[in-house]
Amino acid sequence: MLRMYDLAAAEPERRFSPYCWRSRLALAHKDLPVETIPWRFTEKEVLSPSGQLLVPVLVDGDRWISDSLTIANYLEDTFPDTPSLFGSAAGRALTHYYSRFADSLVGAIFPFVALDILDHVAEEDRDYFRTTREKRVGTTLEAFVSDRDTKLSDFRKSLTPLRLTLKAQPFLGGDRPLYADYALFGPFQWARCISPYKLLDEDDPVRQWRDRLLDCFGGLARAVPAYDV
Amino acid sequence: MLRMYDLAAAEPERRFSPYCWRSRLALAHKDLPVETIPWRFTEKEVLSPSGQLLVPVLVDGDRWISDSLTIANYLEDTFPDTPSLFGSAAGRALTHYYSRFADSLVGAIFPFVALDILDHVAEEDRDYFRTTREKRVGTTLEAFVSDRDTKLSDFRKSLTPLRLTLKAQPFLGGDRPLYADYALFGPFQWARCISPYKLLDEDDPVRQWRDRLLDCFGGLARAVPAYDV
Repeated sequence: MLRMYDLAAAEPERRFSPYCWRSRLALAHKDLPVETIPWRFTEKEVLSPSGQLLVPVLVDGDRWISDSLTIANYLEDTFPDTPSLFGSAAGRALTHYYSRFADSLVGAIFPFVALDILDHVAEEDRDYFRTTREKRVGTTLEAFVSDRDTKLSDFRKSLTPLRLTLKAQPFLGGDRPLYADYALFGPFQWARCISPYKLLDEDDPVRQWRDRLLDCFGGLARAVPAYDV
Repeated sequence: MLRMYDLAAAEPERRFSPYCWRSRLALAHKDLPVETIPWRFTEKEVLSPSGQLLVPVLVDGDRWISDSLTIANYLEDTFPDTPSLFGSAAGRALTHYYSRFADSLVGAIFPFVALDILDHVAEEDRDYFRTTREKRVGTTLEAFVSDRDTKLSDFRKSLTPLRLTLKAQPFLGGDRPLYADYALFGPFQWARCISPYKLLDEDDPVRQWRDRLLDCFGGLARAVPAYDV
């Protein structure tokens, strides 16, 4: 069976990496069973066969595959008889930008949830998380999130192209979700798994799309501990 | 033959609508000859058969089609034996977001080029352009662009996901351009047709991609009056 190292909070069932969520849903899309292994930020050494230090890492027999887009491409090429993540060769090319856009969304959401993450990470990860993230943002996590309310309107406005698209069609992939949907869902799922902060209004088409993805695959992404925001 | 109303500057050969450029390249992609009709902002009445007031408007016999994404879908459905603009049904769905993103890029670039546009629009369009745009931005065009240099770094940073994608592949559509490329090319072509302002560095992968699109279809988009920026 496939195995996947999956970032976990203090509670092992609270999985909260935006990048791991992409891979979880990609595996579900292809109907591939997977054993997820809860992993903490400080367990770098267990990932060493992958040649790098970040999750998700997929283990398929003796192959260790890292980087969520690489994992998606690996699944697409290795299991060609399962439902396509991209729809076509053109769809695969057109998905690349979505993956990078999703990365930038993680950066855009971080100023809202940074301190809430600290409240949830495993005890042994707290120092690591605070130190690395405070170095990255150049201030304390407390100061970093202190003016988050003032940033909310601009954040929501930045989602306009996504919002207009999801008003016109239920998923980025059309009538059914594709990997582009899972890539962009990741950051929103990350946020709701770890933070009570209400990033999206109830009547926002982006939120309604997120909720449709929560319902996919028997409610896979809805089944984990999360905030109802 | 197909005809298309195409926004023109004082010089009739200077065509500068970001939305018209999408359609021009979509027509070229499908190898469909078109007669473009130079159109000025104030010639609203000639568009009335289309039921709205904006270009591009494509005229195919007695059908008048407006809105650039609608035109792309019309061309795809009406000329199924010509090269596909989307690559597949999934590609068509995945293109919707690109079209909306391109719209938002027009808004992001406007603060850099707004006053330069005024220098190029036809004499009869100058009052119309100034009045409608100053109402939209809430200040004079001169004041609106006065701090553009301070905005350049943020604008370039906002292109990071696009830049990383175009570092990894020559076009958004993969090895060859698709409508997603033309949609996003439009705003950059608009800017260079109308403004000497240097939005993109020479070594920026986004600029190199733009230049590859200038070379497509025998240099169609390079052949019009524009600034070498």
